[in-house]
Amino acid sequence: MVPAQETRAPEVTLDEIVALCKRRGFIFPSSEIYGGIGSTYDYGHYGVLLRNNVKAEWWRAMLSDHEEIVALDSAVIQHPKVWEASGHIGGFTDPLIDCRTCKLRFRADKLEDAECGRKPSKHPGEHSECDLTEARQFNLMFETHVGPLKDSASVAYLRPETAQGIFINFKNVLQFARRKPPFGIAQIGKSFRNEITTGNFIFRTREFEQMEMEYFVPPDEAPKWHEYWMEERMRWFTDLGIRSAGLRLREHGPDELSHYSSATSDIEYLFPMGWSELEGIANRGDFDLRQHTEFSGEKLEYFDPDTKEAYVPHVIEPAAGADRAMLAFIVDAYDTEEVEGRKRTVLRLHPRLAPVKAAVLPLVSKEGMPERARAIYDEVRSKVAAEYDEGGSIGRRYRRQDEIGTPWGITVDGQTADDGTVTLRDRDSLEQVRLPAEGIAEHLAAKLAEAWRSPKLD
Amino acid sequence: MVPAQETRAPEVTLDEIVALCKRRGFIFPSSEIYGGIGSTYDYGHYGVLLRNNVKAEWWRAMLSDHEEIVALDSAVIQHPKVWEASGHIGGFTDPLIDCRTCKLRFRADKLEDAECGRKPSKHPGEHSECDLTEARQFNLMFETHVGPLKDSASVAYLRPETAQGIFINFKNVLQFARRKPPFGIAQIGKSFRNEITTGNFIFRTREFEQMEMEYFVPPDEAPKWHEYWMEERMRWFTDLGIRSAGLRLREHGPDELSHYSSATSDIEYLFPMGWSELEGIANRGDFDLRQHTEFSGEKLEYFDPDTKEAYVPHVIEPAAGADRAMLAFIVDAYDTEEVEGRKRTVLRLHPRLAPVKAAVLPLVSKEGMPERARAIYDEVRSKVAAEYDEGGSIGRRYRRQDEIGTPWGITVDGQTADDGTVTLRDRDSLEQVRLPAEGIAEHLAAKLAEAWRSPKLD
Repeated sequence: MVPAQETRAPEVTLDEIVALCKRRGFIFPSSEIYGGIGSTYDYGHYGVLLRNNVKAEWWRAMLSDHEEIVALDSAVIQHPKVWEASGHIGGFTDPLIDCRTCKLRFRADKLEDAECGRKPSKHPGEHSECDLTEARQFNLMFETHVGPLKDSASVAYLRPETAQGIFINFKNVLQFARRKPPFGIAQIGKSFRNEITTGNFIFRTREFEQMEMEYFVPPDEAPKWHEYWMEERMRWFTDLGIRSAGLRLREHGPDELSHYSSATSDIEYLFPMGWSELEGIANRGDFDLRQHTEFSGEKLEYFDPDTKEAYVPHVIEPAAGADRAMLAFIVDAYDTEEVEGRKRTVLRLHPRLAPVKAAVLPLVSKEGMPERARAIYDEVRSKVAAEYDEGGSIGRRYRRQDEIGTPWGITVDGQTADDGTVTLRDRDSLEQVRLPAEGIAEHLAAKLAEAWRSPKLD
Repeated sequence: MVPAQETRAPEVTLDEIVALCKRRGFIFPSSEIYGGIGSTYDYGHYGVLLRNNVKAEWWRAMLSDHEEIVALDSAVIQHPKVWEASGHIGGFTDPLIDCRTCKLRFRADKLEDAECGRKPSKHPGEHSECDLTEARQFNLMFETHVGPLKDSASVAYLRPETAQGIFINFKNVLQFARRKPPFGIAQIGKSFRNEITTGNFIFRTREFEQMEMEYFVPPDEAPKWHEYWMEERMRWFTDLGIRSAGLRLREHGPDELSHYSSATSDIEYLFPMGWSELEGIANRGDFDLRQHTEFSGEKLEYFDPDTKEAYVPHVIEPAAGADRAMLAFIVDAYDTEEVEGRKRTVLRLHPRLAPVKAAVLPLVSKEGMPERARAIYDEVRSKVAAEYDEGGSIGRRYRRQDEIGTPWGITVDGQTADDGTVTLRDRDSLEQVRLPAEGIAEHLAAKLAEAWRSPKLD
């Protein structure tokens, strides 16, 4: 994050987002009936649908747009040697400090934001009463034991990233998927980090879903592909509706770079808490393949049949978080406005991301409207994700659909019985047009297909 | 599993399935370059696509066919009280026996299949040299610690099932998704069990993906809905091509029933190792909601506005494994036959499950065929999942597509340049028909839509 003065005035607070997500069943605090378990969330109906759409768009960008990329889904609990080779056992740590007085534990690099446990003050960083230890390194991997014995031989870890599962399958993909550089291996899956400092809703949690792709290239082509993927990934977010004013690409300084990376740029988004990392695009060089070669004894290289020479490919890695991306899409889509003297909250989600594409609503629950609306609904949902809703006033039902981001509302009213037309309401412009009910499903399917390359305007 | 004499002669061995899955990049043993980690698998490209299709069909059956079912995705690491209430901390155990001589540990109920570590013999169950302890209960949940301290207060578990994440969100769904019984909550996600006896490829592994739905109903309707879901779930498998001769519904005897269940039936499939559980459909009664009410103090009940009475719904649970279902689909689809004196291996997967729907192949890599094939490929893949392949002889490429289960092959040959036609090859019948290349994408999309309710014949 960069200093506060560089942030624009936030248009929505995180509290407002959290409230909407709970109210509309996107995201609930986990284990809430037991008082919760810090920074852990369960996704409700619309949350599952929205995140599934985010993941589907990522797969589309990776697989449909790139024949040279293949999919992978590796295990969460891998051989512990994997994490030795990757450097996670040795180096994936946070420095922690204990207080002998208040018994609390703090991150040494965040001490200034922390409060003493015995005498919490309004002045974080005030630890005058504290008796602090030296900082000690604390590994962020969750540890467990495989098998019935709990000893050092049975220790295993929950993966802290999906990337290593890709590197250890490099040879399988070369051999069985017949790929040659440049080629990519893409994976979506959960990772786990025993973070001390979680927070900002689903921005930083202990379990989270990653979308990572490792792109293996001839060494001299690495800088070119690094540029390529930075551009591609920025475009993915803007194509799906994120305003470019809320996005930026920030290159890591030499002091920030991970041990494996020669160059990394972060795509940052202007979240309510300020500019924060949305996705990292790293040039990992040949670090990982060489490490796994050293630790496993398996040669991880590509033999080029043209030059008759073997080489270790370099790796470009776009690494995104599905939850974090989803949060950015919600924040960017969140809007309020006054309509006829009433405040309206609306999620202006890209139609491809919206959990529900169309709502079919009878104006009132009588005069045959529900039956006609149901028939239209059955037609519409055979083409696009749709909902039928007849409960409560039409205004209340519109507001509900606005808040879950449904782009189109189809209303059946008195006139429908007479001339077979319905109104089609546009979520963003609030424009309502009358259309024949017949063919409206195809009309919406076409609009959805059309929406693909028409991002929101800034 | 039932005794061997009741099984039909297996048509395919598990070894053949494992070999195909590796050869064609469906499934690899995990961490293989480090010698593997027992019974853990990584899914390669076609494995990811196939399992994604299985999951998509499950979501379709749950959500698209049932407006009253909503989706959920709960956390893997939940509040430890969840597992106290569910009975997992107390009762989710296997009885283990140690040998003081050979230092091995055995499952007491599988002692007859195990070999002594000091004197492995060809006669399992021969433990004459062993000095065995009494059986002790061993909990199957993976344990870890949240936060930097490893003490009893920080103990947490990886969920052994997704179901409990649903029960603890019962109130959220009632309140925010405005549902009333009968309604369902469906979830797909990974679960983890520290199994001592794993095996049979992806049939029983320590991490696996579950597809579980909890259906909340008025108590007196529970038997009716239990019947309903047994039928629905059987039909799901046969609709997706599993031969009904390989499927059966088996009711648990009173001695088999779980503590929470008043009635359970398993859908069993005739795997190469014999009849084994594919999916369980349990009547869980009100056990779980009552337990969580007791342990959390939160009333988990439904207030019926018509009768003005509150009641605790009963629960019907169809619980399937995505990996296990995928294995059944592969086994059932696996076939070999002799074609023109050569053995052909083919996966007769239902077109909706097939990872690739159509392969576009130039007969040879010259005379403009690759260019024409590419143009057709671009058209086809805009409608259905497709692959382009120009490497090697046409026979070899067909065999490759047969083994990954691609239902349709489009071949561009010399005649294509003359009259714009291609051949369309059917994976199952091997019939080849000539068709205009124009419109072939739409033709296949229509065939795919049509394939929906046309299961394979027995």
